[in-house]
Amino acid sequence: MMETIESSIQNLWQEVRDLNLGTPPHIDHLPTPPTPLQFLRHYISHNKPCLISAAVPHWPALSLWPSLAYLRTTLATTAVSLHLTPTGKVDSIAPHPTSPSSLCFASAHVEKLPFPEALDSVMASEEKNKVAYLQQQNDCFRSEYGALAADCEGHIPWATEALGCSPEAVNLWVGNHLSETSFHKDHYENLYVVITGEKRFLLLPPTDVHRMYIRKYPAAHYLYHQDSGEFSLEIDDPITYVPWCSVDPYPSPNEKQREIEKFPLYFNGPKPFEVTVKAGEILYLPSMWFHHVRQSPDDTGLTIAINYWYDMQFDIKYAYFNFLQSIPHSLSNDRALFETRNVESNLDGSSFDSGDESDTAVTRDVRDVSDNEND
Amino acid sequence: MMETIESSIQNLWQEVRDLNLGTPPHIDHLPTPPTPLQFLRHYISHNKPCLISAAVPHWPALSLWPSLAYLRTTLATTAVSLHLTPTGKVDSIAPHPTSPSSLCFASAHVEKLPFPEALDSVMASEEKNKVAYLQQQNDCFRSEYGALAADCEGHIPWATEALGCSPEAVNLWVGNHLSETSFHKDHYENLYVVITGEKRFLLLPPTDVHRMYIRKYPAAHYLYHQDSGEFSLEIDDPITYVPWCSVDPYPSPNEKQREIEKFPLYFNGPKPFEVTVKAGEILYLPSMWFHHVRQSPDDTGLTIAINYWYDMQFDIKYAYFNFLQSIPHSLSNDRALFETRNVESNLDGSSFDSGDESDTAVTRDVRDVSDNEND
Repeated sequence: MMETIESSIQNLWQEVRDLNLGTPPHIDHLPTPPTPLQFLRHYISHNKPCLISAAVPHWPALSLWPSLAYLRTTLATTAVSLHLTPTGKVDSIAPHPTSPSSLCFASAHVEKLPFPEALDSVMASEEKNKVAYLQQQNDCFRSEYGALAADCEGHIPWATEALGCSPEAVNLWVGNHLSETSFHKDHYENLYVVITGEKRFLLLPPTDVHRMYIRKYPAAHYLYHQDSGEFSLEIDDPITYVPWCSVDPYPSPNEKQREIEKFPLYFNGPKPFEVTVKAGEILYLPSMWFHHVRQSPDDTGLTIAINYWYDMQFDIKYAYFNFLQSIPHSLSNDRALFETRNVESNLDGSSFDSGDESDTAVTRDVRDVSDNEND
Repeated sequence: MMETIESSIQNLWQEVRDLNLGTPPHIDHLPTPPTPLQFLRHYISHNKPCLISAAVPHWPALSLWPSLAYLRTTLATTAVSLHLTPTGKVDSIAPHPTSPSSLCFASAHVEKLPFPEALDSVMASEEKNKVAYLQQQNDCFRSEYGALAADCEGHIPWATEALGCSPEAVNLWVGNHLSETSFHKDHYENLYVVITGEKRFLLLPPTDVHRMYIRKYPAAHYLYHQDSGEFSLEIDDPITYVPWCSVDPYPSPNEKQREIEKFPLYFNGPKPFEVTVKAGEILYLPSMWFHHVRQSPDDTGLTIAINYWYDMQFDIKYAYFNFLQSIPHSLSNDRALFETRNVESNLDGSSFDSGDESDTAVTRDVRDVSDNEND
């Protein structure tokens, strides 16, 4: 019985690649944007990513934003949200601060400061044990960076027409070579436009959910202490739990063997799709796809990108996903779940909740993962 | 473990209804045809049926075909395919002719004869134990009924534009009040246009696959003996097996209790959607939806319909379906599978194959069902 279900899940991983992603399985690369009908028919409907070149040739941002002087002048008096972490890994799994054998979900220290100062911080990240990333997934492009609005479009016209709605959120990302986002999925159709530098994505389809070892981790946040120049990591109070992917696809050499043993379905299964998105290109990142993001800066040291989140449709594909996630896989349940339970017992008496942030519309919605976790 | 999987499957039945089919779950009824983008965005992409009124107001067929004189004249010398069965149930599960405790898949006796004579046969069906149905699912409208081509369109324009291809097959159906098609699914996107009379569909989403008790039945065909006016039922030689839905949604009163006990997931689960398609209306019947069809004639005694089969896309939804079907459900496996096995042992030494008809493009493709059956 167990064997049948596990082989069924494994067949699904392969069949999605064989049926939906070409031979050999790959991410389609379109030389120019699709029409709304093509985009809907071949990509949104099939929940299939694509990379699009010559996507925004008319945007002033492409020529203006590589100039730091332009950005500093235009945003001279603008207050923006800066995310600080010790390593560049924002929203990532980290050692629990008071229970070293277990883990937590660590969010960045966020501060609001004038753009020129924030930019200095991003560019100085190499010098000290503090990595700054200009980002805020709360529609920040429209709320904080209004001064840049004329440099790009408020939406992606062919996507808007295909999806039949305007973007729910538009976010700007200004990072350096250390900025990294850990594996997760979003409940949005995502159009990701790179303006300077390159973004490097690892992608896995939603059908690979068991390979991500999604567990509930106690939410924590970094605090940056200006005086000492050091970070502390604090568990949120009241405690909440965030369901998050456990797999780090780039473990350090001395951790690698242990990671492979902990997450065999990830490391021994089909490789993730690697997509490099260059300046002027758009990645269509379908809802529910797992993605890990790193970046390579241009010669100013920065990678700048802007992404458009459109509401996803909670249709039969989403129902199927929830069903798949509700099926236990023996190799995806024991060890990591044990770690999660360890955390719970360490934090005795705490309630078990996925966190309030899941109820806001424009942050990553983790609610359904929490509702469907098998524990 | 079993309980978890069965409750997961049951949750899926409900979630597809809650998420994809409105509150309360229903089949959308559109007053006029959608645009290609609307059709793709709201129906094809979501694998969601809809009924469309005022769908083909400009078709001459709507005014011409209710006249039997017109049809007889136009098709005076045309040879057409007539399907004969004792009851009106074409392609249905029937008692095995030589092993009374088991069942088989019975196809109609097919003969080719001039349309006027065939029509007489359809209209005379009430008089004797022989029901005639003009149909042939091999693109018969284009291959046999070319003389009627000018009375309707060769495709449904907004569907063709949405799907990006022309119909793979166009079929004509001329039946009477006894004609009935048993529960099955097709691997096509189906646009079903009623010209005279009404068609009454029962619909269940693909996620309800366990409720259909799909089993492999030995293929058989009726032979009509002109001399005696009687049918015999013959098992195909060489023997082939056809995976088919076991459930008859309208059992006779004295069989009802036994049917409920045999197929509790069907009879005790969510009711199928009932859709009546009237003259001039189109039903969009999405690929992989299970459907059972009966009909009410107009005052000439006939129901005439034409359907357009467009190629379906074998995308992530199809992969999810195959995965779901590969998961055993304890209440869907024991008794009916036992019956299938009985048949196998009765036909000792036979090969176990889904039948050659699954390899032709325009007949119902049963191959994948066979490939994924859990036995």
